Amino acid sequence: MQPLRKAIRDMAGYVPGFQPPDNEPWIKLNTNENPYPPSPQVRAALLAEIGAEGENLRKYPDPGSKTMRQVAAELYGFDPSWVITANGSDELLNNLIRAFAGEGEEVAYIHPSYSYYATLAEIQGAKIRTFGLTEDFRIKDFPARFEGKIFFLTSPNAPLGFAFPLAYIEEIAQRCAGMLVIDEAYVDFADFTAMALVKKYANVVVTRTFSKSYSLAGMRLGLAVTRPEVVAALDKIRDHYHLDRLALVAGRAALSDQAHLTATVAKIRATRERFVAGLKEIGYTLIESRSNFVFASPPDGNGKRVYDALFARKILVRYFSDPLLAHGMRITIGTDAEMETTLQALGEIG
Amino acid sequence: MQPLRKAIRDMAGYVPGFQPPDNEPWIKLNTNENPYPPSPQVRAALLAEIGAEGENLRKYPDPGSKTMRQVAAELYGFDPSWVITANGSDELLNNLIRAFAGEGEEVAYIHPSYSYYATLAEIQGAKIRTFGLTEDFRIKDFPARFEGKIFFLTSPNAPLGFAFPLAYIEEIAQRCAGMLVIDEAYVDFADFTAMALVKKYANVVVTRTFSKSYSLAGMRLGLAVTRPEVVAALDKIRDHYHLDRLALVAGRAALSDQAHLTATVAKIRATRERFVAGLKEIGYTLIESRSNFVFASPPDGNGKRVYDALFARKILVRYFSDPLLAHGMRITIGTDAEMETTLQALGEIG
Repeated sequence: MQPLRKAIRDMAGYVPGFQPPDNEPWIKLNTNENPYPPSPQVRAALLAEIGAEGENLRKYPDPGSKTMRQVAAELYGFDPSWVITANGSDELLNNLIRAFAGEGEEVAYIHPSYSYYATLAEIQGAKIRTFGLTEDFRIKDFPARFEGKIFFLTSPNAPLGFAFPLAYIEEIAQRCAGMLVIDEAYVDFADFTAMALVKKYANVVVTRTFSKSYSLAGMRLGLAVTRPEVVAALDKIRDHYHLDRLALVAGRAALSDQAHLTATVAKIRATRERFVAGLKEIGYTLIESRSNFVFASPPDGNGKRVYDALFARKILVRYFSDPLLAHGMRITIGTDAEMETTLQALGEIG
Repeated sequence: MQPLRKAIRDMAGYVPGFQPPDNEPWIKLNTNENPYPPSPQVRAALLAEIGAEGENLRKYPDPGSKTMRQVAAELYGFDPSWVITANGSDELLNNLIRAFAGEGEEVAYIHPSYSYYATLAEIQGAKIRTFGLTEDFRIKDFPARFEGKIFFLTSPNAPLGFAFPLAYIEEIAQRCAGMLVIDEAYVDFADFTAMALVKKYANVVVTRTFSKSYSLAGMRLGLAVTRPEVVAALDKIRDHYHLDRLALVAGRAALSDQAHLTATVAKIRATRERFVAGLKEIGYTLIESRSNFVFASPPDGNGKRVYDALFARKILVRYFSDPLLAHGMRITIGTDAEMETTLQALGEIG
């Protein structure tokens, strides 16, 4: 037998949302992908990098992602030393735990939010603590001084979709003795960002992903904005060539085309509002969404029943068996046509 | 101040080989890249996946890399459950340490070999032990029973280029109480592989990279062959979407074109033999190479002098200040034209 670490032997591993084969005719509303293609500049940048013979691919990429960091830094108004790019924001969450929490040290997050935090903490052998939510979406029993090494605050929250008010996030930053990681995967669909807190508090990290608003889930890109000393620590931990050449040019091109981002996000938000209105009409209960998905509950509070009925019609949404979430489903906002079909199906399913 | 783990605060971080800008006219023989482009099938697969609008990029990749693992498994004669793919073999080395070595537990490797093992062990807070080499390239003072959690055996060795005989590697596998990771980054340039040992010994892992023989350093691809229970552990630890869509199709296409691999490797080996003969003529000492590089020492044993003189001529090779290596340089095998220019320069430098 191989001498596996106990933490690894005991853990279950994370199970990502179901991915049907690309060529099957599902309406896929289960993993919060963007229904629109990325900026045309992304494709152009990829073709340029691939070139006539794939010649550039034989050479290592820039280990420091210098150009992409510069573009991001300029966009967000920081010096490049405050920015780190990554192979998806998951890589950042992973490396933040490795930077700050040793075996047996405490990592915390809100339940419900992104359960992958727990998986990452388990790999490290860190201690996991979760905080619940009050009825009005504040953190239940958060201590006056939280002494854990990292607190992950997903805002906007997934799978519920609401965002914490900025003043409240700032208060949480002040109450954390360790790091506050604000996971802003969905923030481009909201009206405000907590990024300004990075300048104000040395313990704040804001993470972003390109998987949602930038339509690049298939490219695995993310970034974080935080103090240079935290960036330096994350730079030590990451694989030295973590981003391949194509990801680097795709990320840079996507960041450079803010007009495409704004237009895509506006379309999705408009579709969201129409879908929400339609759901309310058929008696669904909804949490106000600041994301590219909604958390919606049918009148009988039986999420599984509706999930199964949609599945039978090849409409894929996300159902969570957790008692806190089983009364509803998380439904990604797709195209107008997809949401109309879904709404009609839900009307029939009841 | 941020509460960084001591291991991270204390470590220096890995410094990869210098990468001059793509458009500068260097002869770049410092990071063991392949001088030839990847298989034309790689480019074709990339263009097909990008499509007319980059439409596929908005969707998550296959988290299990199923097709690529199948192609690799068939190629090497294993069941797919014995294969894991990765974002460069560096990701595998990293996750192997996380799977087997906790804080304070022992990880070992040969010095000189790939110093990144030490960086990865430092991140984990593992204890590092190194073994030297005897005059005839065997491991110095390797215990009858090595009780450490992982032993990394780079074969062919970098930066020296020699390969351990298979019977000797098998003996080492038997003497390891923990895992033996055989890092075969350069094996396609040698005459034999240790992969058969994976079937025979539960503690053996063989890792491969696409960065050298497959000309895909820019795409970050690697794989490992090992027992299904080790694959399962590594699958728990890796990011669930670690490989992007383009890397997945590039890797699959590269593995599928073995004719291109064979032809490219044959060209590089032929160039290597010509370069070696030329170096010997001008009085250089060489270690017999099974790799796409040579370790070569000038008559005066002053590697730095020659490195600097080559650098001044825009020829980039790798010099290591380590006393064990300072008498020579590691020189990647480029095209015939590049090696002729380099040989002529070395003849002039003396």
